[in-house]
Amino acid sequence: MATESVSSLPIRAAKQTAIHPLAPLNADEIRAASALIRSQWPTGIDLHYKSVTLEEPAKAEAVPFLEAFHSGQNVPTIDRRVLVTYYLRKTNKFHEAIVNLTQQTVENNARLGPNMHAPGDGEEIMAIEQVALEDEGVQAEIAKLQLPEGTQVVVDPWIYGSDGINDDDRLWQAFLYIRDPQNSAEADSNHYALPLTISPVISSETMRVTRIDFLPTGKDNTIKEPEPWQPKPPNEYIPEAQQLRTDLKPLNVVQPDGASFSVTQQGTSSVVEWQKWSFRVGFNQREGMVLYDVRYDGRKLFYRLSLSDMNIPYADPRHPFHKKSAFDLGDAGAGVMANNLKLGCDCLGSIYYLSAVLSDEKGEPMDMPNVVCIHEQDGGIGWKHTNYRTGRAALARNRELVLQSIITVANYEYILAFMFNQAGELNYEVRATGILSTQPIDEGLEVPWGTVVHPGVLATHHQHIFSLRVDPMIDGYQNRLVYDEALPMPRSDFNPHGTGYFTKETIVETSGGYDVDVSNNQSYKIQNAHIRNPVNAKPVAYKIHAPPFQKIISDTGSFNYKRAEFSDRNIYAVKYRDGELFAGGKYTNQSRGGTGVRSWANRKENIVDEDLVVFVQFGINHIPRIEDFPVMPCEIIKVSMKPVNFFDKNPALDVPPSTQKFNQSTLISETHQQGVTEGTIDSNGEVCCAASSSKL
Amino acid sequence: MATESVSSLPIRAAKQTAIHPLAPLNADEIRAASALIRSQWPTGIDLHYKSVTLEEPAKAEAVPFLEAFHSGQNVPTIDRRVLVTYYLRKTNKFHEAIVNLTQQTVENNARLGPNMHAPGDGEEIMAIEQVALEDEGVQAEIAKLQLPEGTQVVVDPWIYGSDGINDDDRLWQAFLYIRDPQNSAEADSNHYALPLTISPVISSETMRVTRIDFLPTGKDNTIKEPEPWQPKPPNEYIPEAQQLRTDLKPLNVVQPDGASFSVTQQGTSSVVEWQKWSFRVGFNQREGMVLYDVRYDGRKLFYRLSLSDMNIPYADPRHPFHKKSAFDLGDAGAGVMANNLKLGCDCLGSIYYLSAVLSDEKGEPMDMPNVVCIHEQDGGIGWKHTNYRTGRAALARNRELVLQSIITVANYEYILAFMFNQAGELNYEVRATGILSTQPIDEGLEVPWGTVVHPGVLATHHQHIFSLRVDPMIDGYQNRLVYDEALPMPRSDFNPHGTGYFTKETIVETSGGYDVDVSNNQSYKIQNAHIRNPVNAKPVAYKIHAPPFQKIISDTGSFNYKRAEFSDRNIYAVKYRDGELFAGGKYTNQSRGGTGVRSWANRKENIVDEDLVVFVQFGINHIPRIEDFPVMPCEIIKVSMKPVNFFDKNPALDVPPSTQKFNQSTLISETHQQGVTEGTIDSNGEVCCAASSSKL
Repeated sequence: MATESVSSLPIRAAKQTAIHPLAPLNADEIRAASALIRSQWPTGIDLHYKSVTLEEPAKAEAVPFLEAFHSGQNVPTIDRRVLVTYYLRKTNKFHEAIVNLTQQTVENNARLGPNMHAPGDGEEIMAIEQVALEDEGVQAEIAKLQLPEGTQVVVDPWIYGSDGINDDDRLWQAFLYIRDPQNSAEADSNHYALPLTISPVISSETMRVTRIDFLPTGKDNTIKEPEPWQPKPPNEYIPEAQQLRTDLKPLNVVQPDGASFSVTQQGTSSVVEWQKWSFRVGFNQREGMVLYDVRYDGRKLFYRLSLSDMNIPYADPRHPFHKKSAFDLGDAGAGVMANNLKLGCDCLGSIYYLSAVLSDEKGEPMDMPNVVCIHEQDGGIGWKHTNYRTGRAALARNRELVLQSIITVANYEYILAFMFNQAGELNYEVRATGILSTQPIDEGLEVPWGTVVHPGVLATHHQHIFSLRVDPMIDGYQNRLVYDEALPMPRSDFNPHGTGYFTKETIVETSGGYDVDVSNNQSYKIQNAHIRNPVNAKPVAYKIHAPPFQKIISDTGSFNYKRAEFSDRNIYAVKYRDGELFAGGKYTNQSRGGTGVRSWANRKENIVDEDLVVFVQFGINHIPRIEDFPVMPCEIIKVSMKPVNFFDKNPALDVPPSTQKFNQSTLISETHQQGVTEGTIDSNGEVCCAASSSKL
Repeated sequence: MATESVSSLPIRAAKQTAIHPLAPLNADEIRAASALIRSQWPTGIDLHYKSVTLEEPAKAEAVPFLEAFHSGQNVPTIDRRVLVTYYLRKTNKFHEAIVNLTQQTVENNARLGPNMHAPGDGEEIMAIEQVALEDEGVQAEIAKLQLPEGTQVVVDPWIYGSDGINDDDRLWQAFLYIRDPQNSAEADSNHYALPLTISPVISSETMRVTRIDFLPTGKDNTIKEPEPWQPKPPNEYIPEAQQLRTDLKPLNVVQPDGASFSVTQQGTSSVVEWQKWSFRVGFNQREGMVLYDVRYDGRKLFYRLSLSDMNIPYADPRHPFHKKSAFDLGDAGAGVMANNLKLGCDCLGSIYYLSAVLSDEKGEPMDMPNVVCIHEQDGGIGWKHTNYRTGRAALARNRELVLQSIITVANYEYILAFMFNQAGELNYEVRATGILSTQPIDEGLEVPWGTVVHPGVLATHHQHIFSLRVDPMIDGYQNRLVYDEALPMPRSDFNPHGTGYFTKETIVETSGGYDVDVSNNQSYKIQNAHIRNPVNAKPVAYKIHAPPFQKIISDTGSFNYKRAEFSDRNIYAVKYRDGELFAGGKYTNQSRGGTGVRSWANRKENIVDEDLVVFVQFGINHIPRIEDFPVMPCEIIKVSMKPVNFFDKNPALDVPPSTQKFNQSTLISETHQQGVTEGTIDSNGEVCCAASSSKL
């Protein structure tokens, strides 16, 4: 029956309209795939779907398609495949299946495990909160606090983490907080300012509390049973709780002739074109935004770009805090947690929104509106030179195209953006904001693994370690990874004054993990050795720069280290294999390691002039400041990819000069009492002369 | 007589109007000071003034003034002093004098030397160009090139540098180029694309060519006599030489209610107030923009902030290139080289310009219009949190105030900006752009100390090493420098899983040079140990972050190393002494070292809870890409100063929430054929719901 119903779904229509092989699943495909899986099971078996997402075609299939697509030839047909992961509901029986929608077949459907667990999902997290609150044992402990009447207890379910102690089953660790008892009607009161010491552990199989932990609040492991609550001040982040500034004037970004980019939507797939750049945007549950087939002026640059994973290990070694080491993509998902972005709030200027469709726990399509905003911004001056002999200045501003997505992972927010400019540069920017994950601490106590950010509230040190997956195609699919170093020349007749230095290029021969030595200006480039620059004959290349950071601090014997396989190196380079997308492994929840990029790299494969993939790590060791509470100002990290001898000159040379006629800036004068500046604008709208503004 | 005339100058008026002790000299003061010096010499002695600039008052005088000034009490009178440096024209007799304008006396007037030389100045550079071109020997060498009729030869005079070989006298090294012979009428043709091998050396004493060097163009030291010129293609940066893009739409920044900042000009001194920040802006020949008395919400932060110096050593060890190691501030001056900024060109939005007055070689005032532009910009999202339980997002954008100045140093441009935000953060940004300093190379040849950027043109590797001088007053004038490190906890019963880590704070006890170890997350803070955070009792502090960089590569025995005393360490910290402003020493031209920050630091003075000064180094090792020619896309470096336990919570918490009503963004829909997005704006101008933009 199920199969019948599937074949009658409009999936055939989708086939006829030739869905792009890299396009995310549409709603009909999601329904069809989950229905096909459901049809594998006797009626009455309830499935809890974890993901119904595009299984991307093998590169061996996709590349010929792209080549034909761009050359206007007939494209080969590629079967649409779907990765479906699910539980038999209320069990720990985790399954992974591949559905071939084109052939209407289930190609694979197997139970996974041991130690293979699915990420959390929204429905499940809400359910865990309820289980914790309704548990009689938990209620008994809360009662001991003698909280004021009407006090709202809030539960933050946490991924259980791994320490190898009775943690083969899939569990949740819940941290409890209260909202301000003086203001319990305010649902957005900041509960992170009022943490409790009670921490129930919940089994996702039985959906029952299996244990109640109590949190240490002193300088050692001592734990105390709950005691009557002592009133503490709140610390709210919502605007109505603040005395807001009144002296900020509006700043509007106006594009009178519209934006310079275009978005062409082909079903769920969006093609963006802007200033010689072109690429295809995908979106999935795990990675959120994914860029495919990135080209500049028609030249190949990147086959696929995405944030691969993120690990956040915490510094407190005491139980249960030592297990706080989240993988925000693998344990939850950057797609499913993406914010619905609002006009004039998350982006400024002329905004185009992309929406997506993901799947819910019933295997049904779930609309995700406005998960990506696209806009242009002014990046300041792009290049300038003034000829001092003639006084003539030539200047072009740097316009940027931004694709931004914002994710909320319980307490934290991450603002993730790909940024393109007119000089052939591509940046990936992460802004970390949101609220610190807090825990109770005895008043007046200071500990070296965290910062007191509010009376009785500790914000523990933690690392954010990101891995950006870069699948390059620099002028072709066979590339190599090299690094340059700048080294002093030895003293000699050639270098008699000890001032000379030179650069040395080294080829990275085999897959592995590599570090960046700033003291030698070590710089990594992805090269195509077969394509030479027409002027200087150097191989065309893009260099990748990520700011240096402190690698994972947990020792090499720790579960943290074994699981976060990307966290110990600046760069991992591997030979491409289908399906190897996630640096921390496919299933990170309570993982044991051995399934991520460190393991792939250990194959020690030749990566010279091969189809290689580079994982670029960057991060923050977040030592909280009190200024990071109750909500933290953005901490910004940027990874840049820049052409090196890829073009034959500055590619932004053809950007029109920056003029007042075009930019329509405003000269401030009357608005200020003193030091009036006058500028006379000529007929072209140019300022021909601006008089001194200082009264001497 | 001279003294008479001085006393009749309106300087008395200036006295009466109580010029602020940190205000730059006004035109009358410049005239008065140079006249006083002229009066010291017999008539007929012609003086070549190098600088007539404010000699800032001793801090022991200035601090009581500021304290009285801010508390509204009567301010002490402080004598106005002027530093005058000059030559007896057409000699190497370099003098330094201190003039007391208040007392109308010359307090000091002495000849300097040996190896004390003044920077170049505009008039002098033009004169050197002329000397080179008019020299018969040079003309004879140029004739050997048999250049096409009408070809324009261009001279780039370079600071001679130091190698200890016959360089006690003040000299200039001139590099010769031609403009495109096919287009010799174009005065802005890029001569750096067409370098010659002839390099005359000029004495600034005799203003005659003393030697003609020939440049090596091969892989070794071999030099060739000039040979007939072989035609080469030009490489122009001016817009009319380009096929300009036609698909870039305007982007305007509009502030309908005006800007949020105010500028109050008191003579030559400008007080800026914006979003709880207040500071005084000065401007001088050497440093350009200087910030004084920087406060947030009335609290003391920085007594003085300025770029102290910049060194650019080149990698080519061959004569005469090995001497290319410019100090762009010490050898020329960030003030005197500041661009006259144009509306809608150098800044975007609502712009306020500051102008300045400096002195010329005759000791007369020289107007410098629009040397600083002040404007606000949107810095993206400042902070955000979404409560996933209620779906409510709280978000504030990050408004920034920018003070920007742009300097042209022959071929190069530097865009220098102080940026303030609403979270109490202060950034100093440098953008390096302009044109690479090029030299000829044999066609088809590659060398490891440079990059061929055009046929026959080599752009040599070089370092840009900057030193930012930070004179702090964090809640007072007695501060200390400390650093934090994040270190792993040893395994123990307390840390059984090897996951724990902690931070350790170390006090920098004595003046010295210090480095930053990223592998330990080493982070430097300036603290006031006497003022404690009201919540967590930690000392109030500001941390300073500069991106790590490769230190000077020239060996420790080299003149480059000895002269650039700041170039070998991330941080130099010294006990404050009046007059110690310039990290490379007061006179860097052909200097020998021993007068800069490394020497001061070697006093090994106690700097704990003292009046200390921190020099923060940062830089680029510029390995040229062909994309950096004929004009380079900006390379951006940012130094940030952030509060650490200085406030009691996020200081940007009171920024009004970001709303469509305030931001007036535009939803893009009709402008695109596909994927129409509709957003319904409610009466408040808020978007209440935005429908999916993807057609599923």
